[in-house]
Amino acid sequence: MTDPSLAAALEKADGTLDASLARLFELLRIPSISAQPAHAADCARAAEWLRAELSTLGFAAKVCPTPGHPMVVAHDAADETDMRPHVLFYGHYDVQPTDPDTLWDAPAFDPYEKTLEDGRRVIVGRGTADDKGQLMTFLEACRAWRSVSGRLPVRVTVLIEGEEESGGANLLPFLKAHAEELRADIALICDTGMADVRTPGITTGLRGLVGEEIRITCATHDLHSGLYGNAARNPIELLCRALASVRDGQGRVTLPGFYDGVRVPDEATRAAWRRLYPDDSGLLAPVGLSVAAGEDGFSAIEQTWCRPSFEINGISGGYEGDGFKTVLPSRAMAKVSFRTVPGQDPQAIRDAFRAHVRALLPADATVSFASHGASTGFAVPEDGPFLPAALQALTDEWQVPAVTIGSGGSIPVVAEVEEALGMASLMIGFGQADDRMHSPNEKYDMQSFHKGIRSWIRVMAALAQARRPA
Amino acid sequence: MTDPSLAAALEKADGTLDASLARLFELLRIPSISAQPAHAADCARAAEWLRAELSTLGFAAKVCPTPGHPMVVAHDAADETDMRPHVLFYGHYDVQPTDPDTLWDAPAFDPYEKTLEDGRRVIVGRGTADDKGQLMTFLEACRAWRSVSGRLPVRVTVLIEGEEESGGANLLPFLKAHAEELRADIALICDTGMADVRTPGITTGLRGLVGEEIRITCATHDLHSGLYGNAARNPIELLCRALASVRDGQGRVTLPGFYDGVRVPDEATRAAWRRLYPDDSGLLAPVGLSVAAGEDGFSAIEQTWCRPSFEINGISGGYEGDGFKTVLPSRAMAKVSFRTVPGQDPQAIRDAFRAHVRALLPADATVSFASHGASTGFAVPEDGPFLPAALQALTDEWQVPAVTIGSGGSIPVVAEVEEALGMASLMIGFGQADDRMHSPNEKYDMQSFHKGIRSWIRVMAALAQARRPA
Repeated sequence: MTDPSLAAALEKADGTLDASLARLFELLRIPSISAQPAHAADCARAAEWLRAELSTLGFAAKVCPTPGHPMVVAHDAADETDMRPHVLFYGHYDVQPTDPDTLWDAPAFDPYEKTLEDGRRVIVGRGTADDKGQLMTFLEACRAWRSVSGRLPVRVTVLIEGEEESGGANLLPFLKAHAEELRADIALICDTGMADVRTPGITTGLRGLVGEEIRITCATHDLHSGLYGNAARNPIELLCRALASVRDGQGRVTLPGFYDGVRVPDEATRAAWRRLYPDDSGLLAPVGLSVAAGEDGFSAIEQTWCRPSFEINGISGGYEGDGFKTVLPSRAMAKVSFRTVPGQDPQAIRDAFRAHVRALLPADATVSFASHGASTGFAVPEDGPFLPAALQALTDEWQVPAVTIGSGGSIPVVAEVEEALGMASLMIGFGQADDRMHSPNEKYDMQSFHKGIRSWIRVMAALAQARRPA
Repeated sequence: MTDPSLAAALEKADGTLDASLARLFELLRIPSISAQPAHAADCARAAEWLRAELSTLGFAAKVCPTPGHPMVVAHDAADETDMRPHVLFYGHYDVQPTDPDTLWDAPAFDPYEKTLEDGRRVIVGRGTADDKGQLMTFLEACRAWRSVSGRLPVRVTVLIEGEEESGGANLLPFLKAHAEELRADIALICDTGMADVRTPGITTGLRGLVGEEIRITCATHDLHSGLYGNAARNPIELLCRALASVRDGQGRVTLPGFYDGVRVPDEATRAAWRRLYPDDSGLLAPVGLSVAAGEDGFSAIEQTWCRPSFEINGISGGYEGDGFKTVLPSRAMAKVSFRTVPGQDPQAIRDAFRAHVRALLPADATVSFASHGASTGFAVPEDGPFLPAALQALTDEWQVPAVTIGSGGSIPVVAEVEEALGMASLMIGFGQADDRMHSPNEKYDMQSFHKGIRSWIRVMAALAQARRPA
């Protein structure tokens, strides 16, 4: 029973897909890497591109400076008689670094289309899946609605930040400072994945992130490993000892108190997840793995959706170049992170990790730590009218029942929007497990882009029909 | 009771020290880094510089190609009536890489003089101590003798290679192929250190070296550490586990059979070493350390001179740049080495290490190894007339009794000269513990250079007097 204007908007989106893709490619070509100061001007360019784009879509759009990269804020015209549900759409224009560049098939900011061996058509480039392809599905849905109706089904405010990949320290202060302007009935975020290539999902669980950098120093300078080897303390060896002992041989973190506050999901939830993912190969096989490496007793999906974990993200020390060098280095470094679940205390975890390392250090070793963020896991409340309405809209588009799913990843804005604006979020995304986010040759399925636009067209109409909360 | 020609040669060396230094600086300015292909032409330039230098010293000198960097071979004119003892002087013109370049006070190949806080005058630059400053002490001694006598006290053949810092794979084959031309009564090597800043030493013990590169791979590509963290195997974690368990908490290597064939020196030797080095601070304090990190029951000097050891020389994996990146890397790498002592089997050690790593690997991890050399420790025989003659010459120069000492380092030519040419070696060097070989701001004491030249002048005269072996 499709509303004729809905049908028209969907038809419009289908008919202008090439132009939508061209607009996405323009945004993809801007190397907006927020973690690298050399690309600060590119981040500003991306913000300006979005401001101009939103303006053509009929928004009152502006670029707002922050101590870091700017925010883009856009408002849909509305007066006090406007009864439409009000949504805040959030996305981020910044992208991950591209290293190692040698592993990309083509330059990371030169997007192109390609057909995979299984026949899927994809768009390749940094930011295609995270987050530019995704956020453009929403903007293109707005374009389609504006084109056939002149007016969006829901009242839309747009917030696009530029530091999600590099800690996002300026987001919470910005939300608080602009709360009146940004508050809405519900937040919409397009930065997550589908349950599988056929099954749309709304993400209702996220993990948090505690990031740490650790540096161990022994001798005052690099030493000759013959003249000093055995007598001089080796910081790489100490680092290996500290990191290797954070988890035991069964994938469990050994830090005291680490699992305090962690609850196992109820059996109904675990059963629902088992129906979605009957075995570990769904997650692991596409990346060349076969055995879930986390705690015994939990499936691979459970290990990433509802169990906290420890990862070593990078390690460095001594001679790393070609050939060999008989050096006994003065220092060694690692970057590590803990993924947290609801109920854990990120600061206590950081303290326990630092205590663990310090306790292992012998004489002649000093350690310094640097913090890279601290958040706990988040569970989105599943009550209210918007979630079921959105699920139905997705089901209508994909012709497969949409499901609620978890995620191993962290999206800080969800907790921050709740803290600063008192709002819940709907995380509706069209990413796939093999998108290679954060890796070389990142891609986004053309089907995700096209049906993602159509999905948002439907979701906006469905939210407009949902009972607006009192 | 100094021979008048000896006195003249010493005086000549003193009077032309500035010119000697200028010649050394020319050689130092050539960036002859053998491990890096980009410097292959510089290595050839250094060889040619030495050929020309040796020619001006009256040698018949030539540059000999090898599959790698060339050798320099020079012969002193001699006929069948020549009764002088025949020495083969060995040195190497290649130097270590200079990373990290940011830690050098001045460019590594722009040598300069400097006065240290304790008043010592030093020459700073890559290769000053290892090995250019050292080999030039011998060449300048030849120059002084040639200048005052027209003839050297001993018959000299010179062999200077260009790959000592990068495995020296071409040396043994070259020695074997040119055995007739290179065989002499004794080899002289200037690539070791003094017992301390006042006490000259002749090195009679060396450790060997077994170098390994190890790469562990898990997933087919780098993964997002949120989406996969906990479920996906982390190669850095596996590498840390493998490396941290090679030694136990008491500094002892845990590999089965590692200590087979290792003998503890007799009490007389250990007592002599204790007299030279009454406590560990002599070795450790100048580099900011205080506690010997090797096996309990052995002093720091013993740990480096007569105990085998394991070092991690480099480690690399994941994101190592500025800031943070939530990556779960696909692979990780380390470069390690074992220092061996006489009696050990380097191939067995390599096999035991590889078996240790393989045994620790769980599912979803593959490992590859690359070998970077394998040698065992070497004990130079202390019989024959040349060693006492050389010790006396050093005592005469430094006015302190010269001693025999060990070394933690490896100098492959000593074992190879014995294997290919049936010759023993005298390792007479003037390096100091704080020379920072293999590190930024490598230096060589001006006193070592000046008195090193004088020492060789004396040693050559002393060897000429020693009874020539039958």
